[in-house]
Amino acid sequence: MRKPKVVVLGAGYGGLITVTRLQKQIGANEAEITLVNKNDYHYETTWLHEASAGTLHHDRARYQIKNIIDSRVNFVKDTVVSIDKEAKKVVLKNGEIEYDYLVISLGAHPETFGIKGLKEYAFGITSIDSARQLREHIEYQFATYNTEEEKKDERLTIVVGGAGFTGIEFLGELGNRVPELCKEYDVDFNKVRIICVEAAPTALPGFDPELVDYAVNHLQKKGVEFKIGTAIKECIEDGIIVAKGDDTETIKAGTVVWAAGVRGNSVVEEAGFENMRGRVKVDEYLRVPGHDEVFIIGDCSLIINEEINRPYPPTAQIAMQQGETCAKNVAVAVRGSGEMEKFSFDNKGSVASLGENDAVGVVFGKKIVGTKASFMKKVIDNRALYMVGGPSLVLKKGKFKFL
Amino acid sequence: MRKPKVVVLGAGYGGLITVTRLQKQIGANEAEITLVNKNDYHYETTWLHEASAGTLHHDRARYQIKNIIDSRVNFVKDTVVSIDKEAKKVVLKNGEIEYDYLVISLGAHPETFGIKGLKEYAFGITSIDSARQLREHIEYQFATYNTEEEKKDERLTIVVGGAGFTGIEFLGELGNRVPELCKEYDVDFNKVRIICVEAAPTALPGFDPELVDYAVNHLQKKGVEFKIGTAIKECIEDGIIVAKGDDTETIKAGTVVWAAGVRGNSVVEEAGFENMRGRVKVDEYLRVPGHDEVFIIGDCSLIINEEINRPYPPTAQIAMQQGETCAKNVAVAVRGSGEMEKFSFDNKGSVASLGENDAVGVVFGKKIVGTKASFMKKVIDNRALYMVGGPSLVLKKGKFKFL
Repeated sequence: MRKPKVVVLGAGYGGLITVTRLQKQIGANEAEITLVNKNDYHYETTWLHEASAGTLHHDRARYQIKNIIDSRVNFVKDTVVSIDKEAKKVVLKNGEIEYDYLVISLGAHPETFGIKGLKEYAFGITSIDSARQLREHIEYQFATYNTEEEKKDERLTIVVGGAGFTGIEFLGELGNRVPELCKEYDVDFNKVRIICVEAAPTALPGFDPELVDYAVNHLQKKGVEFKIGTAIKECIEDGIIVAKGDDTETIKAGTVVWAAGVRGNSVVEEAGFENMRGRVKVDEYLRVPGHDEVFIIGDCSLIINEEINRPYPPTAQIAMQQGETCAKNVAVAVRGSGEMEKFSFDNKGSVASLGENDAVGVVFGKKIVGTKASFMKKVIDNRALYMVGGPSLVLKKGKFKFL
Repeated sequence: MRKPKVVVLGAGYGGLITVTRLQKQIGANEAEITLVNKNDYHYETTWLHEASAGTLHHDRARYQIKNIIDSRVNFVKDTVVSIDKEAKKVVLKNGEIEYDYLVISLGAHPETFGIKGLKEYAFGITSIDSARQLREHIEYQFATYNTEEEKKDERLTIVVGGAGFTGIEFLGELGNRVPELCKEYDVDFNKVRIICVEAAPTALPGFDPELVDYAVNHLQKKGVEFKIGTAIKECIEDGIIVAKGDDTETIKAGTVVWAAGVRGNSVVEEAGFENMRGRVKVDEYLRVPGHDEVFIIGDCSLIINEEINRPYPPTAQIAMQQGETCAKNVAVAVRGSGEMEKFSFDNKGSVASLGENDAVGVVFGKKIVGTKASFMKKVIDNRALYMVGGPSLVLKKGKFKFL
């Protein structure tokens, strides 16, 4: 008898949780499991702000997939080009792969809102590749400063577009990193500018205003300038053009980082599923309406928060919870028996890091700040490792100190 | 009674030896000693190939001048703009300074032989600033490689112009560093090219042919391609144009390093001393002919090797020996009594490093290669520290391992 083929696309938080659950829950004779990922490693997307600033080495934020999956899973290192949902096959850069059941967990793409020049000139915090490029770019700007007869202070200006989660966390790391860079490259700290530009009327939209104030004040103390309610109009080779109301201003900057939002993976859009900016509103079992054999989880899925009738923002937390449910439901589908589990998001809260030993957040409904919040952030980071790879992965990659 | 003013320009090997000797040999009442240097630190010029490749941190190759000089020496951190030899004063960027006795030890400038584009596009191995910029530039090229959809292999090509001492030593370090960079940035070693272009008919001109062969073979084993008898015609934004006879070739390269020669400091030329490419043929007491009050040592001085009737090449070794003699002669001049010492160069040999644990050279007239030569190279490096700062500086900055 032919075994059903289960194909999981993407080894991010959602994909890896799905695969690690499936390899336990489905017997070797029940289905063939294939995991496709463009790298042979998984990376912690929520740690990339550290790798980008240079406060954590990028190898600390990634691990080999082969150490997590067992021999039952067929791993294919390749890039997904397109999904043919009618023919039930996935086109890869170097081949094709057929499926009976498909799990799409391809993650997000940056949302540039059509702003001119962003793709060409701005750096992103989206992958190991982009993180270490950004780190090296900033270091190169500092290293170059003193080599020039005419000092270009704009080399030392870093503009961060977006005061959401990623933007704020990156600013927090810069607050720690910039004094180190000044020392390393003999640069006067007073020449450095770190500017955060946010189009919304507040930093950390959706966060409790008290926590927002705490975060903004603490980052300002570290030297960050905030331009709130200010939109980036264009990114140019040597800076950005911003506008607040009718006033426009050109800010010269050696480094522009775009951290102002994500959309679903373009492969999902191009596959022809009904979507909003690459995110598909899945059913209660995480399936695509009309395509019971296709599950979508993580940043490419869209789940409505009934309380406020708005989509949950894409986070690692929701992706991992979806992965658990998805694995169970794929197992039911493969067997053709049992009952699928309805997905419901259990929001344990969220914590935004503000650099070393500082953070703000809400955990189990309680507001926390400072070292306590920073500790909780590390607990959350370690928990993500634990969920995927158990205690041995926590020991290998976890954030803790032996005292 | 007015104390004579002794001004030393430049805290390189020659300048620092002069000042450290003067502060011992001249009493506080005999003269005022001023040292001018553009940085508040001295750096080991002969170690910059390591800092540039990233195999030694640049802080290991420099130390604070204030830790070497005593309170008798007035240190001025400033850049020399010009020397008015008639008015006996030095114009600095931020002031002026008069002298009765002047020691010029300003070091070398790169000699670009008028090759178009070198100043704009090529990196140099000439200072702490340039070394760490070059290191960061190479890292940035490697970091960027994987971020691009269309891979540009030329990002991973490093061209070194010049197979002289600096060029060869830098290539040796690259031989060790490139495998590390490949690991750090997930780059296939086979995509990397390291190309050395030398216009002369041999690498390491002036070295024993047997040692040259050893060096070239060992660097080739590490992946270096040599283009000997090949001239750089032009440096362009994304590479170089070379010519061998009538054949020209464009080599695309993300990094071009110019290490093919130096000339004396332009301040010396502009001061109106008779010179050859910024180097002044000094008398046997290291004074400028016709200007008994001006001593020139190091890369701006020119001493003829009578054996072959050609100038000695500028090295740290000769600069330090000149510093010793110069200090004695300045002391005689200040006192107006005693006899000046004639300078004669005692060539103890020279060793070119080929990276970790490998080198070639001649020491006390004997040819050595491999680990033995590498050991001698470290002895030479440590000796330079010892000469300036004694055992404590060797302990702080020396090249050795505690076993």
